[in-house]
Amino acid sequence: MINEKSLAWGRSKSCIRELAGYASGRKAEIGEENVFDFSIGNPSVPSPSQVNIAIRELLDSCTDMQLHGYTPAPGLPSLRKAIAEDLNKRYDANIIPEMVYVCCGAAAGLCSSIRALLCPGDEVIAFAPFFAEYTVFVEAAGGHLVSVPPMGDMQPDIDALEGAINEKTKLLIINTPNNPSGVLLTAESLTKIADVMHRAQEKYGHKLYLLSDEPYRELVFDGNPAKSVTRYYDNSIICYSFSKSLSLPGERIGYVAVSSTMDDRQDIFDAVCGAARGYGYVNAPSLMQRVVEKCMGLTSDISAYKRNRDLLYNGVTACGFECVKPDGAFYLFIKAPEADAKAFSERAKKYELMLVPGDDFGVKGYVRAAYCVSEEMIKKSLPAFKQLAEEYEL
Amino acid sequence: MINEKSLAWGRSKSCIRELAGYASGRKAEIGEENVFDFSIGNPSVPSPSQVNIAIRELLDSCTDMQLHGYTPAPGLPSLRKAIAEDLNKRYDANIIPEMVYVCCGAAAGLCSSIRALLCPGDEVIAFAPFFAEYTVFVEAAGGHLVSVPPMGDMQPDIDALEGAINEKTKLLIINTPNNPSGVLLTAESLTKIADVMHRAQEKYGHKLYLLSDEPYRELVFDGNPAKSVTRYYDNSIICYSFSKSLSLPGERIGYVAVSSTMDDRQDIFDAVCGAARGYGYVNAPSLMQRVVEKCMGLTSDISAYKRNRDLLYNGVTACGFECVKPDGAFYLFIKAPEADAKAFSERAKKYELMLVPGDDFGVKGYVRAAYCVSEEMIKKSLPAFKQLAEEYEL
Repeated sequence: MINEKSLAWGRSKSCIRELAGYASGRKAEIGEENVFDFSIGNPSVPSPSQVNIAIRELLDSCTDMQLHGYTPAPGLPSLRKAIAEDLNKRYDANIIPEMVYVCCGAAAGLCSSIRALLCPGDEVIAFAPFFAEYTVFVEAAGGHLVSVPPMGDMQPDIDALEGAINEKTKLLIINTPNNPSGVLLTAESLTKIADVMHRAQEKYGHKLYLLSDEPYRELVFDGNPAKSVTRYYDNSIICYSFSKSLSLPGERIGYVAVSSTMDDRQDIFDAVCGAARGYGYVNAPSLMQRVVEKCMGLTSDISAYKRNRDLLYNGVTACGFECVKPDGAFYLFIKAPEADAKAFSERAKKYELMLVPGDDFGVKGYVRAAYCVSEEMIKKSLPAFKQLAEEYEL
Repeated sequence: MINEKSLAWGRSKSCIRELAGYASGRKAEIGEENVFDFSIGNPSVPSPSQVNIAIRELLDSCTDMQLHGYTPAPGLPSLRKAIAEDLNKRYDANIIPEMVYVCCGAAAGLCSSIRALLCPGDEVIAFAPFFAEYTVFVEAAGGHLVSVPPMGDMQPDIDALEGAINEKTKLLIINTPNNPSGVLLTAESLTKIADVMHRAQEKYGHKLYLLSDEPYRELVFDGNPAKSVTRYYDNSIICYSFSKSLSLPGERIGYVAVSSTMDDRQDIFDAVCGAARGYGYVNAPSLMQRVVEKCMGLTSDISAYKRNRDLLYNGVTACGFECVKPDGAFYLFIKAPEADAKAFSERAKKYELMLVPGDDFGVKGYVRAAYCVSEEMIKKSLPAFKQLAEEYEL
């Protein structure tokens, strides 16, 4: 009688939220300091102080209409210009302000872009492991998500990509650095992906779009030689959120940027705006548009995540667990020492370790540990990892 | 190749935005003070001072994580509770906190509710005149909007409603006070609507839902005896925005409230959450959630809109124009003295009067004047209305 898919999406709890709920219960029972909660990717580092300073300055200097009134649907012109300049300066992108659509966070940008591009029945490819919500976003737009399994080092399997593309493929989503593996796509991988897509465009006689989901773009630890994806492939769209770089996940502010080298860029941009309109997005939150403009290029203290990465990676691998060393983001994707990741996640609970089974990310046999937590918690968790490892005789 | 509907929605400018663009151009040419811009419904009255005070207080008292972190998807529990209490206290509604979904403005709430309820091919009824975006929202959810023409006093035509309902009807949208007519649905109209819907539910053997779009709820001028729509009809859903009452349209904060007397309320609520998830809504902006909780029940200075209503209504009717006196909101829906509202709107431009042709609102032969403007502008515009009336020999 009512929309079955909507009901199913509303009823199904993500495995992350489910575990987080269990963790909350345990904290209430045995004390927060005794639970090692690696479940949720909520940035643990405060926003740079300039964020709250900017809010105060704006309150002092702007009218209520400027602060809280409607903005143009694609965002304040000055912010769109600042975003384009920032992308071009820091990542050698080729974005013009007219191709920047400011939106309510990366999820809004992804959904609007996917809906803009997909005709019913179209297929979207994502490299596993991938952010579990992609499946929902693609289905909501009437499409179908096809998962391409990773190589051992969590870089994409290019041959498998080539095999997965067919007549119905419209779009490839990449996510770098990756949630949940933390892996950064190498220049070599990006070049190969672009090659495959160019060949596929010729073979099938229609365009294939590359959607680059980049909320963790600034959270990289070992140097970031990456130039923008728009330099590898013309038909590229960037989705970005200030959620992680400025620790503002609740404020819902991000953008879509369409490559200026895409020859149908105006159509694609218009369709993104139109899709957002059809989903009820009017404009991105107005005060936060002005705030992020004032904070362009700033980040929270990324070094804290790097310290956490080193501490946790070194700690769990010393116990005998296997995982790829993350280049960025704030996740560790740990190989479960038994085939069933859910069973492993259950067993970890005995030691108050909250590790999300990776099945919903499209890869079996792994768990995700979100290390956007206090350094102290990580230190205290290591003996628990040790005990867990001993149980598996690692 | 790409999604045609998204492209069409992105390309088509609303008649409001088009006229507003023309008005901007004229202001640049001949000076802002010489253009009588009644095109856009951007609240002209500042937010109550408590809004910006609340922001400062929150900055002083909360951690960054509390201010800017993710909230639960349906909103902060304390805000959901405050919303339910406010609705029950002021409007004798019957809402429980668990049935409140805090969202990114009324448009997000409408889109999520429509998508939650509609199966492909379902029909949605709206009483003309109606907010033009309803058509887009319904189409985006795979449905079809059916328009029911108004009576002369702009109250709904109940017989026409009865005639419009069929096997495929899933939902009726009402909007009171109305954009663009300013008319408040009378208790009599609401009772009759509920009667028709009850009969239709029996006749067709399935539920019909009533979606009450209430962004202008507090903007009423002559006393508001209205009790909540949930007291007239069990299968009701309220969509609300703080945009107009607190003059925060750019901040995108509102809610959906599902009547607690609906017997499948949990399914409907879950489906609303699920639909929002599929559209990429993660949570409503976090800082603003805390702000509106602190400002619950407050409003901007509504008396300014009432003064504007009186001034403009008395002025244009004195010139000989016909229109129904608005009970609320900040729009006057003026009967064009010629059949073609677009031609009338064009002719009004000669006198620098920016009046939106009403065709997109589902009623031909009318124009909308948004009087959320300065009192001074209205006073200065009256001679222009006089000249326009003389041209039509009114």
